[in-house]
Amino acid sequence: MEKKTKIHAEDGKQDLVITREFELPLEYLFKAYEDPEIVAQWMGTNVLKLESKNHGSWHFETTDPKGNKHGFHGVIHEFVPNQKIIRTFQMANTPFPPQLEFLEFETLSESRSKLTMQIVYRSAADRNQMLQLPFAQGINMAHNRLEEVVKSLI
Amino acid sequence: MEKKTKIHAEDGKQDLVITREFELPLEYLFKAYEDPEIVAQWMGTNVLKLESKNHGSWHFETTDPKGNKHGFHGVIHEFVPNQKIIRTFQMANTPFPPQLEFLEFETLSESRSKLTMQIVYRSAADRNQMLQLPFAQGINMAHNRLEEVVKSLI
Repeated sequence: MEKKTKIHAEDGKQDLVITREFELPLEYLFKAYEDPEIVAQWMGTNVLKLESKNHGSWHFETTDPKGNKHGFHGVIHEFVPNQKIIRTFQMANTPFPPQLEFLEFETLSESRSKLTMQIVYRSAADRNQMLQLPFAQGINMAHNRLEEVVKSLI
Repeated sequence: MEKKTKIHAEDGKQDLVITREFELPLEYLFKAYEDPEIVAQWMGTNVLKLESKNHGSWHFETTDPKGNKHGFHGVIHEFVPNQKIIRTFQMANTPFPPQLEFLEFETLSESRSKLTMQIVYRSAADRNQMLQLPFAQGINMAHNRLEEVVKSLI
C-alpha cells in the first residue's frame, strides 16, 4: 500500500523534503507538535522538555523493549503557532550530527491540513546513511499514529 | 595580499567551510566566541544576549553609519568550551533563512590555534547568494580584528 507520508530526496543533495496530508484541521495538526502530552502519545516518548517558543529547546527520551533509553534533543530557532517551527534535531549517543529542520503547516480545508518538513543534514553522506535506516516506514507509521491520536481528541 | 581566512565552497553544494589560523592560544581564541564583551569589541556589535551553553541562544545588534539597527540571532545547540559550538544563525529582516553552523577550535601550538567553521545553508541558492555579498572580505577583516582585540588582552 502506498505510504501517505512522502519523502523526496534528490540525488547528491544534503537535504530531503517530507510531506504528509492529514485528515485533521490545521490547529489540531499543530497541537501534535506543540503540546507535550500529545507529542508523548503519538511519538511514544517521554517528553522531558518542550519549550514551544522562539529560542526554546526540547528533549525527548524513548525506552526500547530491552529497557535501554534513547534520547534526542535540539533547540527551537523559530516558533510561529499554526505556521512553522524551525529547530535542530539530534539523536544522542549516535555518530549523527545535528540536523536543521524546517516544518511548515498549511490548511487544505476545514478538516484537512498539510505538513511539509525539510531536513538539512551536515553532509549528503549523513543524509544517505539516514535514508538507509527504516526511515520512510518509521515516519509514515508515526504520522498514522499522530492522526489517530489527535482525531480522538476532536 | 592573500587573505588569512580561507573559504572553501564546492560547486553545487549547500555548505561551505571557513578556516583561519590565529596567532592566539586556543583559550584566547575561544574567549572571542564566548565572552560577550570581547564579542562586542571584535564584531563591533551590541550583544543583547549570549547564553554560552548547551540549548542556549544569542542575539546581537549592529548600528550602521545611518543609525539603522541590524539584528542577528540564533540558538546554541551544543557548546563545548575550547572545542566546539554548534549554533543557528539568522539575519533579521532579510530573505535569508537560518543556517546551521559548526565551529571547531584546535590548538596548533602554545601560541597558535585554528578555527574551522562549516556553514550549512537551506539551499545551494541561499549559499551562492551569500557568497555574492562581500562575504570573504568581511569575514577576513573581522578575524583580523578578532586577533588584534584578543592579543591586547593577553
